[in-house]
Amino acid sequence: MSKPYKRNAEVVDHNQFPGGMQRIALGIEYNGSFFRGFQSQPTGVPTVQQSIEGALSTICDEPITLACAGRTDTGVHATNQVVHFDTLALRPEKAWLRGANTHLPEGVSIRWAQKVPPHFHSRFSARSRSYRYVIYNVATQSALMKNLVTWDRRRLDVDAMIEGSRSLLGEHNFNAFRGADCQAKNPVRRINEIDIQRVDDFIVIEVKATAFLYHMVRNIVGVLSAVAASEKPAEWVKAVLDSQDRRCGGVTAPAAGLYLVQIEYDPIFNLPQPAKGPYMINGFL
Amino acid sequence: MSKPYKRNAEVVDHNQFPGGMQRIALGIEYNGSFFRGFQSQPTGVPTVQQSIEGALSTICDEPITLACAGRTDTGVHATNQVVHFDTLALRPEKAWLRGANTHLPEGVSIRWAQKVPPHFHSRFSARSRSYRYVIYNVATQSALMKNLVTWDRRRLDVDAMIEGSRSLLGEHNFNAFRGADCQAKNPVRRINEIDIQRVDDFIVIEVKATAFLYHMVRNIVGVLSAVAASEKPAEWVKAVLDSQDRRCGGVTAPAAGLYLVQIEYDPIFNLPQPAKGPYMINGFL
Repeated sequence: MSKPYKRNAEVVDHNQFPGGMQRIALGIEYNGSFFRGFQSQPTGVPTVQQSIEGALSTICDEPITLACAGRTDTGVHATNQVVHFDTLALRPEKAWLRGANTHLPEGVSIRWAQKVPPHFHSRFSARSRSYRYVIYNVATQSALMKNLVTWDRRRLDVDAMIEGSRSLLGEHNFNAFRGADCQAKNPVRRINEIDIQRVDDFIVIEVKATAFLYHMVRNIVGVLSAVAASEKPAEWVKAVLDSQDRRCGGVTAPAAGLYLVQIEYDPIFNLPQPAKGPYMINGFL
Repeated sequence: MSKPYKRNAEVVDHNQFPGGMQRIALGIEYNGSFFRGFQSQPTGVPTVQQSIEGALSTICDEPITLACAGRTDTGVHATNQVVHFDTLALRPEKAWLRGANTHLPEGVSIRWAQKVPPHFHSRFSARSRSYRYVIYNVATQSALMKNLVTWDRRRLDVDAMIEGSRSLLGEHNFNAFRGADCQAKNPVRRINEIDIQRVDDFIVIEVKATAFLYHMVRNIVGVLSAVAASEKPAEWVKAVLDSQDRRCGGVTAPAAGLYLVQIEYDPIFNLPQPAKGPYMINGFL
């Protein structure tokens, strides 16, 4: 059943976890505009993963490899990404937090650190992922929130957006909503919840699913935005879904408005659950 | 009584305003971390003023000079700075807004544009200025709000801060609260209101005065923070004020948490009044 231990970031049976090894989970916040996505790249471009691995390797005095709950793309933010790593270094949880944060570059910070059992895996133990997409829906753009929201000056009808979104709930072939570079063999995914609200000058679209395809949330938002702007009727969303053809969809919404806001795990792991955020809508939701 | 017209940005009598000339007021938002303060500098470093003058000069096809309600320092933000300029170019108000915004660099945007009478002056007609200082008071820093708030991990007692702030209300010699580079001849200022609230993970200190000395809000926040952190008793604030000696004060609070949020004018000018912000506390206040 269980695979032999291979450091780091694999699911392992408790019995095979080496003596002295610890598994540490971290809650991570980042501004995606500072990075070329989460995942390390061979060319040495700035990524969230390399930044954190570098900081942790310094603290641990050994090379550290991270696994994460959900890889995010260039420009996409996270308020509550979850990662984990294995280390032989013994440090109090506070040291991981404060020590690693002092070694991180601008744009990424560690919110919490907690020891987890070896059968916890940030990716494979995750029960669901939730993303929020934030549209700033006013006449003029915001200098203070540039890169942190997507500005749309059109008159957007949230009720039409909600109506259109209903056909996406449940298990479907989301081929029409995945990016051209999507590597997944199986395009079937299950969307558990879509919650769309106007909060002051913002429209917040929250999508919760077991897992997502590449660009899936941004393509959903692109299609729903066309409906909200009355360019397409609400029924068009179902037509796009049923087509199973990406060419039938709308534009991919910009990365700037997208946040990974929550990863759900078995409560037995007792991980911290900070507010989903992001900050510009914290007071509302 | 009235001075002869000199372009731009002077208070002028209606009779002396040249035919065909228009005075336009703008509401401005900026992220201070992108600029070396508001005011133009001879060396060509990036400033808010030069950015806006450059954009407007392009739109107007003539050199434009701005006056502003309150000069802000390097790193200080504004949600509602007010500026004005004179121009012979005839453009609809929407053109000022959309046209100029497309010529502005990252970090600054125009929120509204409105024609004003020649006796309006963004600086001299202002009845009061309000600043908000935002402290993010949690254990770990925020990657998403870096440069947009001041992070303070200490346990801060807001009630002590409020108690200490009372002695600053009204008209006083604020010599102990002004920066070393302050050029003002008269150190007497009148603080009309100080409002301090804890809102979720933030502490917001709002100070409203007719006018401010250089670094005055940041020095007030530095002194109040020492009280809030129990390093000093609340009575210390009055002792600092009475000393009239800057050396008796605390550290100057960082620029990152400071926002110019509102300028008050005679309601007769009928200028737009957007929410004070900034966005991370919009839902609360």
